[in-house]
Amino acid sequence: MDFFPHRHLLGIKGLNERDITGLLDLADEAVKISRQREKKTSTLRGLTQINLFFEASTRTQSSFELAGKRLGADVMNMSVGNSSVKKGETLIDTAMTLNAMHPDVLVVRHSSAGAAALLAQKVSCSVINAGDGQHEHPTQALLDALTIRRAKGKLSRIIVAICGDVLHSRVARSNILLLNQMGARVRVVAPATLLPSGIAEMGAEVYHSMEEGLKDADVVMMLRLQRERMAGAFVPSVREYFRYYGLDAEKLKAAKEDALVMHPGPMNRGVEIASEIADGPQSVIEQQVEMGVAVRMAVMEALLVSQHQGGLNNQGYGA
Amino acid sequence: MDFFPHRHLLGIKGLNERDITGLLDLADEAVKISRQREKKTSTLRGLTQINLFFEASTRTQSSFELAGKRLGADVMNMSVGNSSVKKGETLIDTAMTLNAMHPDVLVVRHSSAGAAALLAQKVSCSVINAGDGQHEHPTQALLDALTIRRAKGKLSRIIVAICGDVLHSRVARSNILLLNQMGARVRVVAPATLLPSGIAEMGAEVYHSMEEGLKDADVVMMLRLQRERMAGAFVPSVREYFRYYGLDAEKLKAAKEDALVMHPGPMNRGVEIASEIADGPQSVIEQQVEMGVAVRMAVMEALLVSQHQGGLNNQGYGA
Amino acid sequence: MDFFPHRHLLGIKGLNERDITGLLDLADEAVKISRQREKKTSTLRGLTQINLFFEASTRTQSSFELAGKRLGADVMNMSVGNSSVKKGETLIDTAMTLNAMHPDVLVVRHSSAGAAALLAQKVSCSVINAGDGQHEHPTQALLDALTIRRAKGKLSRIIVAICGDVLHSRVARSNILLLNQMGARVRVVAPATLLPSGIAEMGAEVYHSMEEGLKDADVVMMLRLQRERMAGAFVPSVREYFRYYGLDAEKLKAAKEDALVMHPGPMNRGVEIASEIADGPQSVIEQQVEMGVAVRMAVMEALLVSQHQGGLNNQGYGA
Repeated sequence: MDFFPHRHLLGIKGLNERDITGLLDLADEAVKISRQREKKTSTLRGLTQINLFFEASTRTQSSFELAGKRLGADVMNMSVGNSSVKKGETLIDTAMTLNAMHPDVLVVRHSSAGAAALLAQKVSCSVINAGDGQHEHPTQALLDALTIRRAKGKLSRIIVAICGDVLHSRVARSNILLLNQMGARVRVVAPATLLPSGIAEMGAEVYHSMEEGLKDADVVMMLRLQRERMAGAFVPSVREYFRYYGLDAEKLKAAKEDALVMHPGPMNRGVEIASEIADGPQSVIEQQVEMGVAVRMAVMEALLVSQHQGGLNNQGYGA
Repeated sequence: MDFFPHRHLLGIKGLNERDITGLLDLADEAVKISRQREKKTSTLRGLTQINLFFEASTRTQSSFELAGKRLGADVMNMSVGNSSVKKGETLIDTAMTLNAMHPDVLVVRHSSAGAAALLAQKVSCSVINAGDGQHEHPTQALLDALTIRRAKGKLSRIIVAICGDVLHSRVARSNILLLNQMGARVRVVAPATLLPSGIAEMGAEVYHSMEEGLKDADVVMMLRLQRERMAGAFVPSVREYFRYYGLDAEKLKAAKEDALVMHPGPMNRGVEIASEIADGPQSVIEQQVEMGVAVRMAVMEALLVSQHQGGLNNQGYGA
Repeated sequence: MDFFPHRHLLGIKGLNERDITGLLDLADEAVKISRQREKKTSTLRGLTQINLFFEASTRTQSSFELAGKRLGADVMNMSVGNSSVKKGETLIDTAMTLNAMHPDVLVVRHSSAGAAALLAQKVSCSVINAGDGQHEHPTQALLDALTIRRAKGKLSRIIVAICGDVLHSRVARSNILLLNQMGARVRVVAPATLLPSGIAEMGAEVYHSMEEGLKDADVVMMLRLQRERMAGAFVPSVREYFRYYGLDAEKLKAAKEDALVMHPGPMNRGVEIASEIADGPQSVIEQQVEMGVAVRMAVMEALLVSQHQGGLNNQGYGA
């Protein structure tokens, strides 16, 4: 990729097809690095990456940490309990303090939608949104796209069924935006109680039945049932949920024979997905994790190297 | 700096003017490193730095971590909850265990005054006090001095008003020692209940009124109100406290027009400082954070490189 | 060491004398590295080490972290609370997720016996058991052996008395296996309530009296009294325990005059060992810690470098 005209990655919204294709191409190269015995490059040597996680996330933080280290950056982790942080000002005070230490990139996860965009307005370094509330999780959508593109050879015109707890899922949101941008056909399959309003306007066809929603799908993307976010609201029983929306061999038959099964992790086995499917031949769940490191390497390289090769449009996007 | 005749940095007490000037000069060079794109040197390559924090401190630990990494050291963080640590013996057992792993420098924060000095007697590596109880926090005083010197061109004969919760503040204590050593005029401004006994003997003029204490000051240094350390004692109401001792535009008028506003962070906005002042044109609070990384780089370079260039007086100081 | 025919280090069981001697020889070389000013090599440059600790262990995790960094590896720590992890599937899901990120070695500590062996069957990288329940802790036995061999010049025919809470000790178990393999005479000294059944069949002579058990011993190895593992069962009073089984000057007299005193740490001073003995001239407790870093460097070098020099038998051992 010669040129990536962005300073931040705050969301998929605002990325065009060329941006996404460029990142995925770069990530294809990064996959090779992690598969070598010596996995270290000097791409970001001497640069500082800070992972600022207000929500715990072993998986995403590890992926960013390894991505940075393999690019040669100095990586510092800061896990800040939400409980000890007051909203608003303190988030900004924390970010301004870190900013004064001259990081080159802040990777931010926060429970509030818009947190990463807010920080991006304040700091002088690049900001990567590693998940903000129920808003966006752009690197997850990129790694999902990379996984699909490597298996199917393309993203356009494929049918992707995103199933389950769409209501609480920033993963679903970022995926719908990306897949639409790349010309895929996106379906969401969920009970009405687990769908946000306005989902059809985002460009997703709505199904309430797994059998209908999965019919002829090229990709079946299961979502984690986020019962921890359902305080006081409708909480489905696990047994009922699995019966109607858990992916098992019977339901999977509706999809194409070579359909990919995906899950962003961590999985609730026996809730949204049966173990035999999670570990079965169509599952690419582990490949998603591998692609995660590669995509994060690509994003950091694009943001941090392109910034210094001229032509930078200093605006973020996806706010 | 050709020569820094100390093995440990346990406090400002025991440092002379030449020591302090030498560290600040070295820190001025270190500032340049963090402002470069490639922020990594090989000064401490192959050396091991252990951050041993018995009290949590995101800000100070991060600053030391980045300082060490930018100098090329291997940095290991050890956060030890005070609750799980018995006093005395176990502190020493922990330190002796780490010492046996051949670190080159232990950066120690502990809730007990004298903890760093105690460790320094036991281990064979350098020890840096990153805050011990209400005793000293020498790198904070050095970063404050660097911030002032860069803005005002000197430390001698300037008037510095240190305001607020002096009683619980190791920051105040280290600053008073350093500023006196460098020929500044130091004032403390606080209610009698938040002043330690013997403060006048330390070389600070005592004021109880912000208007009088700030008159003609070159620097207004606000302290964090440490209500968490006031168990069972006098705890001022936030509202009353802000009214009499919180820095706002009105009170700041008493100081010189170009007076610097400082705060060691984290700030209680609306308690000891108004947001408009914290974010205003006279605030150098973010510069303090930037100088923090530089000062810690300078201290580690002085302790660890000078030790191996001969002439080392193997005694610590400031105990 | 030219050749170490193993992919994993899951336990001492399965190692032969040549394996152990080879690791100790390699560790003797690694000791020199940590004693140099510049302690960094490029042996594992570009390789990824993940420390996956389901039980907290400051000491062991630090030792592995420094070992990896000194070998030039990229080291990532993952501390996973046991409480948040369901047994079985989730352990494996966590490991598979990490495995997909292409680590070269997983260092695993877990409260369940067999956890490391289970992971080794699932992942494609090397696995090192850093303690699994009451089963094995092979690097502890290796560092103890290195400490003894450096002091006594040999392991064969020396008398080692392992004293105290043998029942709950993976350290004891791995030591008995190793010392027997190397031709030492092993005794266990403990009340009947703190001995596992079948201990005699493991090749240890059983004593219930310190005076008899320590008679003519070359090494007195004290174990931590693990009261936290004695839920509901016999919990000795500290006072009684120390009286009968705590190592003090009087009891130590039974051993040889130049007997080594060892303890894997962390110590309960005044419970299983008197402070005067822990800090006395016969104590090699700090040397054990130093040897710990060296042994872990040797194990990682043996597993990760030998794998790529041909001749690898791809089977683990000690499961």
